[in-house]
Amino acid sequence: MLQVVIIGSGNVAQHLIKAFAAIVQVQLVQAFARHPENLSHLLPKEKITNSFNDLSEADVYIIAVSDDAITEVSSQLPLEGKLVVHTSGSASLDQLDSKNRRGVFYPLQTFTKNKSVDFSTVPICLESEHKEDYRILETLGYALANSVYRIDSAQRQSLHVAAVFVGNFTNHLYGIGSRICKENHISFDILKPLIRETASKINTLTPLQAQTGPALRNDKNTLQRHLDFLKDSNQKEIYTLLTQSIQKAHEQKL
Amino acid sequence: MLQVVIIGSGNVAQHLIKAFAAIVQVQLVQAFARHPENLSHLLPKEKITNSFNDLSEADVYIIAVSDDAITEVSSQLPLEGKLVVHTSGSASLDQLDSKNRRGVFYPLQTFTKNKSVDFSTVPICLESEHKEDYRILETLGYALANSVYRIDSAQRQSLHVAAVFVGNFTNHLYGIGSRICKENHISFDILKPLIRETASKINTLTPLQAQTGPALRNDKNTLQRHLDFLKDSNQKEIYTLLTQSIQKAHEQKL
Repeated sequence: MLQVVIIGSGNVAQHLIKAFAAIVQVQLVQAFARHPENLSHLLPKEKITNSFNDLSEADVYIIAVSDDAITEVSSQLPLEGKLVVHTSGSASLDQLDSKNRRGVFYPLQTFTKNKSVDFSTVPICLESEHKEDYRILETLGYALANSVYRIDSAQRQSLHVAAVFVGNFTNHLYGIGSRICKENHISFDILKPLIRETASKINTLTPLQAQTGPALRNDKNTLQRHLDFLKDSNQKEIYTLLTQSIQKAHEQKL
Repeated sequence: MLQVVIIGSGNVAQHLIKAFAAIVQVQLVQAFARHPENLSHLLPKEKITNSFNDLSEADVYIIAVSDDAITEVSSQLPLEGKLVVHTSGSASLDQLDSKNRRGVFYPLQTFTKNKSVDFSTVPICLESEHKEDYRILETLGYALANSVYRIDSAQRQSLHVAAVFVGNFTNHLYGIGSRICKENHISFDILKPLIRETASKINTLTPLQAQTGPALRNDKNTLQRHLDFLKDSNQKEIYTLLTQSIQKAHEQKL
């Protein structure tokens, strides 16, 4: 049985701790938190340490800290020749200290406080410095999830950018929609079936095939009415830029 | 039983024809198409006409044509005092000829060719000039769908703009994500669970609560790396604008 130590107490760390606790193929032997109280709702006291010198033996050490802290934390670990991975979509493998066997265990999903995640559906993107370690990470990945992908540091960087577009930015567009509804005394619920259908269409169509709307049809009257309607200069700018971008993409079949 | 005539043969008209054919509470007596062959896969010949003079008697005439054609088509109808509605999110009730009893029957969903729609989940937004007609439209709405909303022309205009943000624009962001994946030899499938989870989170959180990512955290290193990564000036511009917009929204708790 694989033994795992998790280093970190933030969002991703907490979601991983919960996920590992729920499966039998992996033993979560310990978690490191500078402030152990951050994890006390998830683990018994004796499984939490705030000292690197007390780290337990394990097959894999998972550093789940903010991107900026990965290099420092990995260099502080009093370990050598161990398999140490980070969970970041945007940090490269090189940001880990080379005294250990380096790897990446990147669960590509949006993790929000107070919203549980079904890990079985989360794609796990793996990279390892040493070929043998890939097997270990793969075992760990499949213990949690149904799909595991080999993604190198350059690909992971591009994937992370793409994830910002389809995840963070999309959610922000939901926010703009919700604000427009609120200002006009309409329930945001009316838009939710459209949001679901838009997300679901791309399972059977490419986004290019799935595109609809006044920008695609170049329906100038509607586009102008929408711009006249929008009073917020920021919303106007987003509307204009994305309309142009849709039209460009379709001219070029991108 | 309500008798309905559909005028139009485009996307929305075809989806409505299919939906009405599948329910028993409404009788689709006829459809009008300038080119009857456009509907011949959906209806028997004798139910399709290409002449306004042959329009059948019905309780409701549904004009499902492009926004720009609504006024012209409605004035050409050789009908008077009949309930005539359009299906557009962006046209006002006034765009219908006042010789008939006017109304709007707007199914708020994205309709794509070759992708069937479960109408029961589509919110139907209704408006009527005459109070008594609202009941008829409501009956028609609930025959197709589980939720029906009273939305006046001004609200519908705002709803349509909001729908462009959460539907059309969101789909375009999926397209950008898919393009980045393709260019870096990564399967777009890796992003689909994130897309699904992002769409699903707003059922339990507001979009403001659901927001995550480098823009929200103001993670300057990652933001800069992403901008350096993006070579397409259009993608760069969208990235910059939406990042700023997320940061503004969160400062102002919008």
